[in-house]
Amino acid sequence: MGRWAPGAADRLRAAALELFTEAGFENTTVAQIAERAGVTERTYFRYFSDKREVLFDGQSSLQSVFVEGMREAPTDAAPLEVARVALHRVAEFFSSERRAYSTARRQLIEANPSLGEREQFKLLALAAAIAQAFRDRGMGEPSATLSAQSALAVFHVAFVQWTTPGETRDYADLADAAIAELRTIAAG
Amino acid sequence: MGRWAPGAADRLRAAALELFTEAGFENTTVAQIAERAGVTERTYFRYFSDKREVLFDGQSSLQSVFVEGMREAPTDAAPLEVARVALHRVAEFFSSERRAYSTARRQLIEANPSLGEREQFKLLALAAAIAQAFRDRGMGEPSATLSAQSALAVFHVAFVQWTTPGETRDYADLADAAIAELRTIAAG
Repeated sequence: MGRWAPGAADRLRAAALELFTEAGFENTTVAQIAERAGVTERTYFRYFSDKREVLFDGQSSLQSVFVEGMREAPTDAAPLEVARVALHRVAEFFSSERRAYSTARRQLIEANPSLGEREQFKLLALAAAIAQAFRDRGMGEPSATLSAQSALAVFHVAFVQWTTPGETRDYADLADAAIAELRTIAAG
Repeated sequence: MGRWAPGAADRLRAAALELFTEAGFENTTVAQIAERAGVTERTYFRYFSDKREVLFDGQSSLQSVFVEGMREAPTDAAPLEVARVALHRVAEFFSSERRAYSTARRQLIEANPSLGEREQFKLLALAAAIAQAFRDRGMGEPSATLSAQSALAVFHVAFVQWTTPGETRDYADLADAAIAELRTIAAG
């Protein structure tokens, strides 16, 4: 396949995850990833800034989906309703086709501290973006930060469940259940 | 003062924060910190493993205070009530005597990404310890993680307010207000 073939980024993501899982993150080179994906190393770096980023560039898309999802909620919606609307958009991102990839990716990240650090950094950026989106809806502080942390907790708990082998509920159902649980915790 | 003088750790913490704030974290050496505190470099390393740790060892004490505070809550207390009891113990840790130090420390950390990373790492450890303490109370998942994230959000929002120049309420009042706000967010 040529370097401009459509889907090169997706093939690189799949090839990287396979190789990292088979041989370990440290033992895998960008050249090997590119070779398995049928592209040149130069093409790899057209899409991803370094060897780790092939696992993380999806986080930027996720952040956009989340924040744009929040804008779809009615102006007067309560914070957890805003989160619910956004998480149903996130559920389209976390489709059944993506589930095996996300599950393998999570296992890899949890086994590699240097990958875990970047994951945490991206989650902090997501939390900041959600808080900003709440402020953009006219919410003050500390409500915006508390709302964002609540939304992020629901997002993350549902994600961990969704990527746990044996769990069959889809992401939207898990997010709805986590929101209900959070309401119980706060009301109790 | 001799190397075994009581209060050496406290003097080292104060000296480090002064020097980091005056000259910058990168430009300050452990030798300078020890000199200002009136102890030897060897004494510094008896208390702190590296130059950053002088700012962070208090986090371990804080984590113990938080988790032990949770144990003081009645067995059947709801999650946010458990958090409230613990945060009132944390409020004794965040005393008025500590406030100026904590405020200067936060400003320093926010201005230095490498310090911010360690702060985030310590907050992740705190979140994990709180979740474990909820599980020790017999709570299952995902409730324990959601409860811990809620408690951590309240803890952190109150801390940011408490260390904001001009804010005069004490930590316990700020934590109570953040819990009330979280209840409103979740109920709304």
